[in-house]
Amino acid sequence: MRKVQVALGSRSYDIEIEEGLLAQVGAKVHALLPQAETVAVITDSNVGPLYGETVRKGLEEAGVRAPVLTFPAGEESKNLATLGRLYEGLARAGVTRSDAVLALGGGVTGDMAGLAAATFLRGVAFVQVPTSLLAAVDSSVGGKVAVDLPCGKNLVGAFLQPRAVYIDPDMLRTLPARFLHDGMAEVIKYGCIFDADLFDRLGRIHSDAELLAAADGIIERCCAHKARVVERDELEQGERMLLNFGHTLGHAVEKAFHYETYSHGEAVGIGMVLLTRQTEQLGLTEQGTADRIAALLRQYSLPADVKMAPADFRQTIAMDKKKRGDRITLIVLHAIGDSFRHPVAFRDLAAYLPKED
Amino acid sequence: MRKVQVALGSRSYDIEIEEGLLAQVGAKVHALLPQAETVAVITDSNVGPLYGETVRKGLEEAGVRAPVLTFPAGEESKNLATLGRLYEGLARAGVTRSDAVLALGGGVTGDMAGLAAATFLRGVAFVQVPTSLLAAVDSSVGGKVAVDLPCGKNLVGAFLQPRAVYIDPDMLRTLPARFLHDGMAEVIKYGCIFDADLFDRLGRIHSDAELLAAADGIIERCCAHKARVVERDELEQGERMLLNFGHTLGHAVEKAFHYETYSHGEAVGIGMVLLTRQTEQLGLTEQGTADRIAALLRQYSLPADVKMAPADFRQTIAMDKKKRGDRITLIVLHAIGDSFRHPVAFRDLAAYLPKED
Repeated sequence: MRKVQVALGSRSYDIEIEEGLLAQVGAKVHALLPQAETVAVITDSNVGPLYGETVRKGLEEAGVRAPVLTFPAGEESKNLATLGRLYEGLARAGVTRSDAVLALGGGVTGDMAGLAAATFLRGVAFVQVPTSLLAAVDSSVGGKVAVDLPCGKNLVGAFLQPRAVYIDPDMLRTLPARFLHDGMAEVIKYGCIFDADLFDRLGRIHSDAELLAAADGIIERCCAHKARVVERDELEQGERMLLNFGHTLGHAVEKAFHYETYSHGEAVGIGMVLLTRQTEQLGLTEQGTADRIAALLRQYSLPADVKMAPADFRQTIAMDKKKRGDRITLIVLHAIGDSFRHPVAFRDLAAYLPKED
Repeated sequence: MRKVQVALGSRSYDIEIEEGLLAQVGAKVHALLPQAETVAVITDSNVGPLYGETVRKGLEEAGVRAPVLTFPAGEESKNLATLGRLYEGLARAGVTRSDAVLALGGGVTGDMAGLAAATFLRGVAFVQVPTSLLAAVDSSVGGKVAVDLPCGKNLVGAFLQPRAVYIDPDMLRTLPARFLHDGMAEVIKYGCIFDADLFDRLGRIHSDAELLAAADGIIERCCAHKARVVERDELEQGERMLLNFGHTLGHAVEKAFHYETYSHGEAVGIGMVLLTRQTEQLGLTEQGTADRIAALLRQYSLPADVKMAPADFRQTIAMDKKKRGDRITLIVLHAIGDSFRHPVAFRDLAAYLPKED
């Protein structure tokens, strides 16, 4: 059993990482939240059929009612309409303030279930069982939950720390390769911003089998990095912003292609490379860094470039929720493993965006 | 200027009460939140035409952009669809994390705008300008914000403390009499649960003119009571539940009549009397208390009784978000001014509900 503690005073919680953990989730949740008579399992139409029954059975064997609420898989479900249906499902299932919501799935499920838990009855307990690599290393730590609006991603949300996170690396074996690689973009991000050793280690993995064999250690390392940052800056006033490396341009890429062409991880990878090419030119970043990131992304079958007009970047960034007044804080690398916050006035943004060919 | 401080550590704020305050709100908000370049004013179709322009002008004279978002007045607007339109409006208005939302209106507006502020971009600053007596004495203190679901009232929400509350008792003069009296039900509730002196004083007011003349002092007293309770129990784990006196049965009354026949205050008044008649019979409450409450309600043109089947109460209370597991905490009076929490198992609830004739 690997364990990462996220120390946030009365809202502290543990991330447990172990092969085969899924079958123990019911008993663990009951031990953690003995007052919860009902634990509503929120999952999507991909993950529910694979793992929903294992989790439901584990909870019921522990004496806990476990209604399963399933929504259609995909980022296009991450909206207020789906959220409304989840609320109705929680109400119909008779969930009370002493009960809990369990997210079983990837990042979209964690976001949807987390926002539902943060706001249903003004807040009920929340447990996460991430089933994708991306969710395991990113959205399971730190409590940022959100849904999209028609005009932008993650514009409505909350900060809600889970009471526990249970990660079973076995589940990564059932992930389609594209989703496994999608998560690797965020893993590579941790290397870029905090951990040159991790970056180098990722370069020495040459097959998905090697990756799966190393997954528990990689997940632990990423979660530990994120936990330390979130502990120091829970509400993203400062240091936590470092985790947004690649995300400002990445969101623009996702949006320009209507969230259809590139997954979140793929877009973040592209965003890391595009921004770093510019910051190399501006003398902020060690030469060659963008090429090193691009090469590592390609090693995990991830794209590292995109054809997009500068105006499309500007338009999305103008709506970015990280904007404060007329400035936005970009995350820039000095070098691999060494990142910093770099506030840029909106009028100076062009220098940080890819140029027209 | 009367002022009530709500002391909640880093989330402390002041409630200011003064005739003519509305015209100063813009300057005050700018002084309080100098980093906010945009303050989105959320109001409804009744209040917007009366006061929206005064607030907008005040903000713009202070150099602050002030888009006004107006939704159709009425409890039937307090839903996820209206909330979604407010989110879209905030996004279109370019509201960023350093900006703020100002609620201008009654309880529904405070709830809608508050939940929007709590969740848009995962939270922006929130200022309240309550324009009804009910909002001034109740929803402006304490940070409970919510919207209704089709299956129940206030089932989705958050705890969000405002950064300031500005109450201009002048505005009560434009309230239709029914809404003024609606608010008196909550004022009478403060007398019932905390303050026999206030209860007696309300009995000595014999016209709306006398009431309006005394309004600033009454508002201050009610806000001070609520502030002291919220300070000790912000998240409604214990003592704050006392404020729910009359609400459990009252919500059932509102719902049974589809939120059309009885206003919130009217329903709460009925709920206080109906429950107290039962608790007198059970020997929990001093004899004659229900009659005293009913007489004071009638003095303010408020109903004190209703024809409703016990099953209708039970059904709504089964969905009440204050339920925890199979128990619900009712608020009961020992006597006027002296209240206590009384947990009741759902199976014993019948004794606390009106009987069939």
